[in-house]
Amino acid sequence: MSEITASYFFTGKVAAAEPFAEKLAVGLTVGSWTELTTLDQEHLAAYKGRVVHAEQQSDGLAIKIAYPVKNVTPDFSSILTTVFGKLSLDGAVKLIDIDFGDYVSHFPGPAFGIEGIRRHLGIESRPLVMSIFKGIIGRDVEFFKAQLRAQALGGVDIIKDDEILYDVPELPFEERISAAAAVLKEVEDETGHKVLYAVNLSGPVFELKDKAVRAKELGATAILFNVHAYGLDVLKGIRELDTGLPILAHPAFAGAIAGSDSHGISYPLLISKLARLAGADLILFPAPYGSVPLDQQEAEQIVRAARSAAPVPRAFPVPSAGIHPGLVSRLIDDFGSDIVINAGGGVHGHPDGAAAGGRAFLEAIELYEGKAAGPAYEKAVIQWGSL
Amino acid sequence: MSEITASYFFTGKVAAAEPFAEKLAVGLTVGSWTELTTLDQEHLAAYKGRVVHAEQQSDGLAIKIAYPVKNVTPDFSSILTTVFGKLSLDGAVKLIDIDFGDYVSHFPGPAFGIEGIRRHLGIESRPLVMSIFKGIIGRDVEFFKAQLRAQALGGVDIIKDDEILYDVPELPFEERISAAAAVLKEVEDETGHKVLYAVNLSGPVFELKDKAVRAKELGATAILFNVHAYGLDVLKGIRELDTGLPILAHPAFAGAIAGSDSHGISYPLLISKLARLAGADLILFPAPYGSVPLDQQEAEQIVRAARSAAPVPRAFPVPSAGIHPGLVSRLIDDFGSDIVINAGGGVHGHPDGAAAGGRAFLEAIELYEGKAAGPAYEKAVIQWGSL
Repeated sequence: MSEITASYFFTGKVAAAEPFAEKLAVGLTVGSWTELTTLDQEHLAAYKGRVVHAEQQSDGLAIKIAYPVKNVTPDFSSILTTVFGKLSLDGAVKLIDIDFGDYVSHFPGPAFGIEGIRRHLGIESRPLVMSIFKGIIGRDVEFFKAQLRAQALGGVDIIKDDEILYDVPELPFEERISAAAAVLKEVEDETGHKVLYAVNLSGPVFELKDKAVRAKELGATAILFNVHAYGLDVLKGIRELDTGLPILAHPAFAGAIAGSDSHGISYPLLISKLARLAGADLILFPAPYGSVPLDQQEAEQIVRAARSAAPVPRAFPVPSAGIHPGLVSRLIDDFGSDIVINAGGGVHGHPDGAAAGGRAFLEAIELYEGKAAGPAYEKAVIQWGSL
Repeated sequence: MSEITASYFFTGKVAAAEPFAEKLAVGLTVGSWTELTTLDQEHLAAYKGRVVHAEQQSDGLAIKIAYPVKNVTPDFSSILTTVFGKLSLDGAVKLIDIDFGDYVSHFPGPAFGIEGIRRHLGIESRPLVMSIFKGIIGRDVEFFKAQLRAQALGGVDIIKDDEILYDVPELPFEERISAAAAVLKEVEDETGHKVLYAVNLSGPVFELKDKAVRAKELGATAILFNVHAYGLDVLKGIRELDTGLPILAHPAFAGAIAGSDSHGISYPLLISKLARLAGADLILFPAPYGSVPLDQQEAEQIVRAARSAAPVPRAFPVPSAGIHPGLVSRLIDDFGSDIVINAGGGVHGHPDGAAAGGRAFLEAIELYEGKAAGPAYEKAVIQWGSL
């Protein structure tokens, strides 16, 4: 019998772990058990939750329950409702992990993944570099084009929209895409360097599929998506369109679901494993060096969940927030070369401007690979230091 | 200038509340301020977040920031990403409330609301009674029909699917609707009593609109929706279809977002105010009498947010979980008569079966209104006691 196994952590103590877990396993599936007739029990055994593990630890209760896949349908909403619907309302309980078993085959995973994106960009093994627009809210298309061009000239591989820039009159979705396509073609003609532009796919949910197709037609080369504000199944639906555009999963709003130690879903499960299964090619996450509260261990789990062996392609983990060139060697040491290094202020804040900022990141990677330190990198290290 | 105002609570202390809040208001909108030219400041003032309130309290920091509506589009995903996207990742901060100002006009609210549903059912002022299937997972359509009939014969007003029953081969969505329509027509012919059946709308997100229309065609009379597993914008999109079916917003999974005191979104905002604005006619929530961790004050805030004066119709608050007939007078005392009383075990567990269980609830309401206690109610009180 195929099962999906959910791992939970309950803060606090119970009298006896096993009966507590058994009551949950029954209550979250067939509803009752001991009062059923033997005939009903025989029939419903195929639908009943099964306790895999129940252990009282010093700080709480670790429980694993396996749910027959017959109880769900291949969407995240049904699975999350079964394994964490009512239970989420029931006190201090955190959903740590979900093992999908062979049911994982129902989920698309990334269309490109690490290998697909490397092939597409022609970059074999070095970390990719991504930069973000800065101070774009309230600006017009001329500002957008100038900032895009400066970033692209620095040699970064991907430029992404700010996740808080939506389809607004000052800078509409379609106009951004067309403008970006023109600017990036110019830069490619001038320098031979190819840059992806990830447009923020936003607006009414039932218009997103048409907008994704339109984005491709107008020359967008990637999609940025606020998956946790929209829902994992929305990402899955967009992924299944097969637009030919890689998808960047932004962690915005994920802290509302994953930020607490005692409630919600763990960061590695929510923003990495589930987003990857839903179709994210790039998994953005707050790097553990900045002000944000992810610790090193959680970051490593996120990276592992993005790149682990699975029936779906591996996704690029994208450490973000507070990244500057002086952190590059640390990032590669910690997370390897199959990452995308993502910076905003660390590009735009370079003393010689955004193009030099982008160059400084690429020089930092070359330095790590044994080349001499470049001049843009040297200036960046004076500005921000190094680790 | 139209604004949306978000209220936050930060656990812990900061050196100075006002500068902390100002830094957020800038960072979450235009990105930087003091380093801008005067010309840029003049232009971007219309996009900059504005601190409305910042106060260090004994247990934390209360902050209100007003965001120009120019920064967002009329969907929950953009609004939540702007007011709680990056911020949710930034430590112990809870989004307590959002005041939409006149931007509220962009949200549909319930198609029916309290008045519409009362008119539709011909019930002027008493609380409505809803019952839920019990032990339906793994069962077939005959079991479904028998249990539906028993519930309907008790005189309840609404019968809802179990939120963990999806579109499964044993009991497919369409078959449930057709079977329910036939059973409820029989009961109406026999008794003159009209009962709504709320089918659980589930499955791939981009198929939900077609399924909602199909549900109406096949004779469903209401929709149950796991809005918090799918996303608020999905509910909004379904509401805007105007299928003519009232929508019940189930709180499943909401605890993952609202359960923590220090992180996420408050229950009243998430499951009541936002779900109502998105289009929920009925707001299910865990009643504060059972094992669930909502307290009385939170429950009252949920009820208020569902029924407050607003440009959209009022929604029915639906106290749920652990409800039995002996609690009815307490429910009406606490929340008034404009509620739907929702019970599963409190209907099915009646000594004389589900029909008597439903009757017991209606007798409890009559008792509250001054009539003599009925026999089904008396037996229920022996079974479960009263408050």
